[in-house]
Amino acid sequence: VSSRTVSEIGEHALISRITARLAMPSWVLVGPGDDAAVIRPERGALDVLTTDALVEGVHFDRRFVPPGAIGHRALAVNISDLAAMGAAPRAALLSLVLPDQLEVAVVDAVVDGLLALAERHRVAIIGGNITRSPRPDASQAPGPMMIDVTAIGSVRPRRILTRGGARPGDDVFVTGTIGGAAVGLNMLRSGADLTGPPGRGPEWSAPLDGSAKLQEKYLRPEPRVRAGLLLGRNRAASACIDLSDGLADGLRQIAVASGVGITVDEAAIPLADGVAEFYRNRGTDVLCAALAGGDDYELVFTARPAWRGRLKAVRSQAGDLPITKIGVVTRETRLSVRTASGDRDLPAGFEHFRSI
Amino acid sequence: VSSRTVSEIGEHALISRITARLAMPSWVLVGPGDDAAVIRPERGALDVLTTDALVEGVHFDRRFVPPGAIGHRALAVNISDLAAMGAAPRAALLSLVLPDQLEVAVVDAVVDGLLALAERHRVAIIGGNITRSPRPDASQAPGPMMIDVTAIGSVRPRRILTRGGARPGDDVFVTGTIGGAAVGLNMLRSGADLTGPPGRGPEWSAPLDGSAKLQEKYLRPEPRVRAGLLLGRNRAASACIDLSDGLADGLRQIAVASGVGITVDEAAIPLADGVAEFYRNRGTDVLCAALAGGDDYELVFTARPAWRGRLKAVRSQAGDLPITKIGVVTRETRLSVRTASGDRDLPAGFEHFRSI
Repeated sequence: VSSRTVSEIGEHALISRITARLAMPSWVLVGPGDDAAVIRPERGALDVLTTDALVEGVHFDRRFVPPGAIGHRALAVNISDLAAMGAAPRAALLSLVLPDQLEVAVVDAVVDGLLALAERHRVAIIGGNITRSPRPDASQAPGPMMIDVTAIGSVRPRRILTRGGARPGDDVFVTGTIGGAAVGLNMLRSGADLTGPPGRGPEWSAPLDGSAKLQEKYLRPEPRVRAGLLLGRNRAASACIDLSDGLADGLRQIAVASGVGITVDEAAIPLADGVAEFYRNRGTDVLCAALAGGDDYELVFTARPAWRGRLKAVRSQAGDLPITKIGVVTRETRLSVRTASGDRDLPAGFEHFRSI
Repeated sequence: VSSRTVSEIGEHALISRITARLAMPSWVLVGPGDDAAVIRPERGALDVLTTDALVEGVHFDRRFVPPGAIGHRALAVNISDLAAMGAAPRAALLSLVLPDQLEVAVVDAVVDGLLALAERHRVAIIGGNITRSPRPDASQAPGPMMIDVTAIGSVRPRRILTRGGARPGDDVFVTGTIGGAAVGLNMLRSGADLTGPPGRGPEWSAPLDGSAKLQEKYLRPEPRVRAGLLLGRNRAASACIDLSDGLADGLRQIAVASGVGITVDEAAIPLADGVAEFYRNRGTDVLCAALAGGDDYELVFTARPAWRGRLKAVRSQAGDLPITKIGVVTRETRLSVRTASGDRDLPAGFEHFRSI
């Protein structure tokens, strides 16, 4: 079956292949296969909802992004949005738009990647739909593949993290490392054969050396679910956002929503290993590139200096995830970077998603 | 601004145009503009969730479907799924994929159509995202427009309607009239100029004569929210489904999910005015065409004969919406139509959506 195409086996059979793999927790009263899913909200909690679509040719290129990574990323970007609100992910709906001639094996691998991440975070896939992508005629390129995921999570009322709570004097922190995904994407793109048609793409199996780690950061970003939950539970953040479109963009969004400015310290930004070297070898401004590079899916958050104890609790429970202070919130609504050679304005981020 | 294109004004400005029009009820704690939306679940109720994507060239053709109707239908098909569960719609997320060269006026009109329906059903648009559609190069057709809506509703535990509760001996009912949308689509298609590029399409303003009513049934289907709620509230249905892919398909889905058969009576099927005449004039088998035609978004439901009193209550509260008995549920798992010339097997429905 897996060597056949989507149009050969039909959407019905495709859906059976997917739903056969799904397990439903007890709070799912009606799962896939009816007009809609029915779930029991978490007692005493609020519902948190977000949707982001990944579109072939806009958000991923099948010539160098393997199908498993497409599925992983489609769910990861949505879970990451929940994490930035301090919410625990619970469920997801999956909307697939598939070109007629796509191999079933590719769909299987996309679903593999998505379900592996879903299982790790105990996210139940409770419904969705599959439809074909248009192809006006044979002279035209096949329509794009698209995956639109809606993620549903829960959060207690007093634990919600928003973008709008930063105040002058707050410190600014970031989880993990910065800039790795953009360099990984660069490496993948330059190593790929971009002349042929989109193929099934490579699946990783090689040990992760430095380059592979950066590529993996792009292909399979780890949504910071636990960090977001800990920040909410400990009331340790005044504002929070996830980094889809780069650090500069994330800082700007918090600043605008909070009506404040932010000054970050170049020397404090925790660049991923190999990022500075990569840009330096190409004669690119390291700071500018690292601030603008998207797809890291780390959390940026602000916290009052008096909350040092709360943050300590978060750090001790967050395991080995680095949490680094990178700057301060200012009253003056300017976004700047302190460098050895003076202050610079923040460069604009890369806009590839826009949330309503 | 409205004469400019999507790429000229940018996604950011487009989103501002949309969010400026949205009003949030008090149970929306965080609306558009953050990483995710936060809503308070309805007390004592369950969450009901569904998603369906409308894809240009698959589910609609911009050469004869005006943008307002695209927006209306994108929300209507999802609200209809909630209605079929007996749920009240509350909120929706909106995922838009837009070709670069699309006029802003078209996007405005799509949103007009969607918001008009949302307001009528008090559905809050709590978030979403906008992204561009891919265009590999100038020699290729522009990427398709897509609207993926996720609708969220609520239902009390004992009022959930599923597809799986029909039992032998139950009666089978349908709301409204059947076959109108498919004839309307046929009329729109045959009256359209299909040689040119997709335009902005006509907006209706003419008085609704017979043809216009059928076309309107396709363009702006009325989700049967009140009927679904009344069926749930009065516990008047043993199974329910909405008709996206035709009456034959809807009956088959209920039969399969319930492990039963269904026999419908040809003479009882409430065809919309003009449907029989339309097919007869074209030499098409009326019964077959009417059973297979999709897009009506009426509800089909089953009910025990002993629930006559409950159904009477539903009818009296449903205003002038016709509710017609069209058949019975059988133990033998066969799907058939009783006609003047004997029993026939049900034809297969038109598969244009598939739910996971």
